[in-house]
Order: sequence, then C-alpha cells, then structure tokens
Amino acid sequence: MRILILGGDGYLGWPTAMYLSQRGHEVAVVDNMARRSWDYEFGAESLVPIRSLQERLMAWEEVSGKRVAAYIGDICDYDFFEPVVREFRPEAIVHYGEQRAAPYSMIDRKHAVYTQVNNIVGNLNVLYAMADHVPSCHLVKLGTMGEYGTPNIDIEEGFITIEHKGRKDTLPYPKQPGSFYHLSKVHDSHNIMFCCRIWGLSATDLNQGVVYGVDTDEILMDERLRTRFDYDGVFGTVLNRFLVQAVMGLPLTVYGKGGQTRGFLDIRDTLACVELAIRHPAERGQYRVFNQFTEQFSVLDLALAVQEQGKKLGMDVTIDHTPNPRVELEQHYYNAINTNLLDLGLQPHYLNDTLLESVIHVVERYKDRTKHHLIQPDVNWRRTTNH
Amino acid sequence: MRILILGGDGYLGWPTAMYLSQRGHEVAVVDNMARRSWDYEFGAESLVPIRSLQERLMAWEEVSGKRVAAYIGDICDYDFFEPVVREFRPEAIVHYGEQRAAPYSMIDRKHAVYTQVNNIVGNLNVLYAMADHVPSCHLVKLGTMGEYGTPNIDIEEGFITIEHKGRKDTLPYPKQPGSFYHLSKVHDSHNIMFCCRIWGLSATDLNQGVVYGVDTDEILMDERLRTRFDYDGVFGTVLNRFLVQAVMGLPLTVYGKGGQTRGFLDIRDTLACVELAIRHPAERGQYRVFNQFTEQFSVLDLALAVQEQGKKLGMDVTIDHTPNPRVELEQHYYNAINTNLLDLGLQPHYLNDTLLESVIHVVERYKDRTKHHLIQPDVNWRRTTNH
Repeated sequence: MRILILGGDGYLGWPTAMYLSQRGHEVAVVDNMARRSWDYEFGAESLVPIRSLQERLMAWEEVSGKRVAAYIGDICDYDFFEPVVREFRPEAIVHYGEQRAAPYSMIDRKHAVYTQVNNIVGNLNVLYAMADHVPSCHLVKLGTMGEYGTPNIDIEEGFITIEHKGRKDTLPYPKQPGSFYHLSKVHDSHNIMFCCRIWGLSATDLNQGVVYGVDTDEILMDERLRTRFDYDGVFGTVLNRFLVQAVMGLPLTVYGKGGQTRGFLDIRDTLACVELAIRHPAERGQYRVFNQFTEQFSVLDLALAVQEQGKKLGMDVTIDHTPNPRVELEQHYYNAINTNLLDLGLQPHYLNDTLLESVIHVVERYKDRTKHHLIQPDVNWRRTTNH
Repeated sequence: MRILILGGDGYLGWPTAMYLSQRGHEVAVVDNMARRSWDYEFGAESLVPIRSLQERLMAWEEVSGKRVAAYIGDICDYDFFEPVVREFRPEAIVHYGEQRAAPYSMIDRKHAVYTQVNNIVGNLNVLYAMADHVPSCHLVKLGTMGEYGTPNIDIEEGFITIEHKGRKDTLPYPKQPGSFYHLSKVHDSHNIMFCCRIWGLSATDLNQGVVYGVDTDEILMDERLRTRFDYDGVFGTVLNRFLVQAVMGLPLTVYGKGGQTRGFLDIRDTLACVELAIRHPAERGQYRVFNQFTEQFSVLDLALAVQEQGKKLGMDVTIDHTPNPRVELEQHYYNAINTNLLDLGLQPHYLNDTLLESVIHVVERYKDRTKHHLIQPDVNWRRTTNH
C-alpha cells in the first residue's frame, strides 16, 4: 500500500515509516524539520543523538534493502503539499505533522497562534488534497486523549449516546482540552468529522495517550536509526523526565498532588495501532475515533514506579511535589474506554520493569549529554495575577 | 461603561454601536472593512445603500450629540489591536469581528483557511489582550446556533448534564457544525471556555440564530445611519432572499425539501440581547452560553409566510424547490432551549406581518438596485464527484 507519513522525521513518525516500510508498504515521508528547529529555540536537543533525515533514509536502505522517499516541506504550504499528494497518490496518510507540545503552545500569544494555525491549516490542507486528488485515501490522524480532559464520567471513544428528555442520539463526545495545543487537536477533529460527512472522506482519529519508550525492532537494527528522546520542560513527557532525573540523582518532580491520571502506551504499540488502523480502514464517509492507550497511570504512580525500579538498580530516588505550572485537576475521576484497537487485535506491551530498565540504560549511556537547566518547566499556564 | 465593538461597521455591529451609545455608554468600534471588501470579490453590494463608517460616525454625532470612536484595523494584527485595548481599556468587548458567512467559507480551500485563521486568530488576540490588559473585562462573543447542528435531542444552552454508566457530569454540549465557518465558531467557543478556566476571564457566548430586519430606533433617526441588507447567494440569509425574490416577481428558492429548521430573531432583539448580556455580566472565570433566538422556523415556513404576505400586498409569489447546495438534513427534529435571555428580561419582537411588510417596502424602495445573478447559490458544499 502507498502510505504517506506526515511528520515522518519526528519521534513517532520516523519509527512508523520504518515499521511500515519493513512490512512491505511503499512509504514516503513529509517533514518540514520544524521539530528539529524548535530545539534551537530552547538550546535543547534529543538526549539520544539522532541522524539527519537524509542519513536515516540511507541507513534504512542499507540495513533493510528498502527505500523510503522523502519530501521536505511544509504541509501548510499547499503549493508544496498538493503536488506531493497528486504524484504519490497515497492510499493511506498517517498525519503526525503537527506541533505536539502543550507547554510550547502555552509560552505566549505567538506560540499559541502558531500552534493553532499550523495544526489547523496543515490538517485542512490534508483534507482538501484528499478530496481533490485521492478521495478514497484513508486518513489516519494523530489526535490526543487530552482532547477529552478529565470528565466525571467514563470517556468513550469519540462518541457518546445521550438520553435526554425522553429522546436519544449518539453525538461527538464533549471535549475539555487543557492547552492551546490540545485545543488545536479538538479543532482538527471537528474539521475532519465535517469533511467525512460532506465529502465522503474516511478517517480514523487516533486519540493517543502519552507514549514512552525508545526501542522498536527497526530502531534496534542500527544505531543510525534511533529516534528522539526528549526530557526538557517543553517537549519532554513526564516519564522521560522522571527517568532522566533518576539517572542524574535529582528528585523526581511531581507537579502538584500528582493525582493527574492519563492514558499511556509503549512506542511499539503506537506503531501497531497505526498499522491496525491502516489494515482495517474506516469506510467512505466514516469518521471514527480510537482511544489509543493501553494503561492508565497517575503522575504519582509513574514516579513511584521509577523510584522502585531505581532502587532495584541501586539508585537512591526521591520524589518532590513542586508547584503545578499547569491549570488542571490534581485529583479526579478518570476512566477511558480503549476497546476499539484491542478488538482489532492489538497485543499491548504493558509498562514493566524491563521497559523501565532498558530506557534507564539508554539514559545512562547518554548521561553526559543531559542538561539540568532544561528539565525545569519554564512555561506557566497562568497569565493574570488576579485570578 | 466603556464598550469596544469589534466588527462595528457590519450589519449588526453598527446598529449595536448606536444602540449602546444612545444608552449612555462610551462606545468605540474596531473594523478592518473586510465586509465591504468582500462585496468587491463578488460584484455584490448591500441592497440598502450604506454610508462610509466615517460618514456614519459624523451623522450619528450630528443626530444624537454622541461620539463613537473608531479604530480602523485588523484584530488579527496584534501590533494594531493590543494598543487599542490598552488605551481604551474596555469594560466590555462585543465581538462581531469575524467572517460570518457559511457559503463564503465553503468556496474553496483558500476561503476555508482564511475563515478559520481569521476568526480563530482574531479571537485568540482578543483573549490575550484581555488577559494582559483588562482581565476583568467581559467578553460578549457572537457565536451561532449553527454550532450545534441538528441533533436528535433538545439543544441546551452550551452545556448538558449527562448521566452515563451510573455517573454524572455537566459537559460542553456536543457540536456538529455544518460549514467551515460554523466550525470556526466552535473552535472559538472551545478557546474561550479554556481561557476563562485558566486565566479567570469572563465571557458570554451568544449562540445566535439567523437575524432579520433592517430597522432599529437609531437607524430610523436618519437615513445616513442605515445598515446593510444582503440578499446575495453568499452573504444573504434565507428570509432576505425570499423577500427580494418576492418583490422581483421571482419564485422563492427553497433548498431541497425545506424542512431545515433554525432559530431566528429580529435585529432589535439582537441589540437587546447584547445589552442584557453586558448589564448582567458573566462572573470572573465564568464561560456561559446564551442561545440567542426567539422563534424556530423551517425554511418552508418562511417561504409560506412570505408568500402569504405577498398575496396580501397583491403579489403573485410562487415557491420552487431547488437542489440543495448544502449538505444538511432536510427533515429533522429541532428543539432548542432559549430561556437564559428571556429570564434576563428579553421582550421578543416576533416575526409578524408588520415586520415582513416593512422589509418588503424597503426592498421595493431599492428594487432598481437588485441584481438577479447575485441571488443564485454559486457555492456547493460537495466536492468529490464519487461521494
């Protein structure tokens, strides 16, 4: 199958490209190198050294004997993107090509506007290019579990049947996102749903949890194929931060009470989920949502797991509760449904000691590259002093 | 009270400015003249001749003895807009300053992107300017009843209490908008709700129905104070189109079956609702929604009402069912709640013969200015042929 991967140079895009290439698909990646350029903005970098996209592609061909094509450019630029779709004629588009960090979107007005415009316009361009050139192409769009927020009822997969005053309808699940980034994904979801309805496009919105892990079968084939590992206060996710803090001998910084509960999954499951969605496409005109995570943890759960694993490895790991830079509930009900992907055959890799240990070893290997000052959160959700 | 009206040169913005000025408020308008420039794009114009904003302001001062200040510029341009807010220090902002036509947003990709970027960025700029400079200012934002679509359950005012699997929460009402324009308002609503939550801003989202009518007390004070009357296929609303068709002796064009039901209100009620919202502001941190319409009609209801009124005035009015350029249900359940504004004291002007007759007289007066070719819908919601 011809598969176009938008954001194919990123943390998940690149492993996805190799994974699908390895399975015999004709894969092309599109990337504007935005993720690499954001590093320059903060003087940050992936803890794990990564090669240029060009070197990655050469190494992949050398190792696997398979070619992945690359288009370097911005999907927000339709003059660039339309010809890519017209020429490659993808049967599936995997859309990772968005600004994906909540703190980045909360830095200031310009970053909020950039995030929403970048994500919305890129996504609209994808939808128009599909409608104009490959109307039967299946869009596999990366959304986020963060679209739902933390409602006091179970989180269903995209839609909920509501009985109200004696009548009944199945409607889009209400959204309560917690940052301008998460909002941009909600906007995307509404736009995609509409285009499926009016133009008969087919789309799967993968409302993904927080991804952890650095190893996939393809990455392990060659050191040059490694993907990013971010631990900084802007792009790093919580588990990465804890693992780096543990290795550096720093206290794990739990924001506030630490009862914030979210869905998580292993990077290998991300790849498997994307492939499952591709192999079982949405129908023409169908917009469907899969909640893509395998387990729920609170922030404190994760800190305790890292502390426990550190102890086994002879580390003395402490936990600090620091002021929460985000505006969010720190103790709340959370129960999200995730049966759609399991029903399609997903075999989850649950978070366990082996995974934690293997990531700790990767972090230890690159310990010299860690930068203490990058870990602290510099971005605060609050703006007015008199709130 | 110091009130800043964004889009203060538009169909509703201008009458609102005069209405609030007349009631003793210190009013300033902001406008980038986008609405007037769109006329040039289609060779269209308001059936009722309107004066320049500068002439309007002079005439208003002459007639009322009251001054309304004007800032000409684009709220999407923060270098322009931020100083306006910083200097005028509004206590309320009435935000009409958006691209407001569904067909305009559906013309093509560029118009879709323009509509969403223009509306989202302008609205984000308003929120940031409030947070930075006037955090206790009350935002009165014009949304649309079209955010809800046509669900098979009653439409509540912004939020709905859902009981689900033995638990209960009050959540944002699910949205199923029907155009890229309507989607932009949904995106705005989510962004505003978030900013009220994290920054403690206060906002009222007026989910407005279709507005009809051309006369307000202030407009009737002087011919130079008249507001727009649009009947073209892009910016004209359905009742305006029917009234012009009736006067021109053309069949009323009902799209499809005509069972499409929506909320409607008189322009005088729009002004009253905005003032009610201002006089009873949302609390700090509160995001609230008022459904702003007074009656529900189907498209066919309106056609029959115009036919009936035409008959009384000696016109022979016929009705044609034409292919629907939009993708929408043509027969559906529709019952929207609108008690919030009534509870605040709104005294509705219901659609009646007097109103229809008075608008017909206005149309007759400017009959020579009507342009037949502008009436037909040129914009089609459908894009792919194999849908």
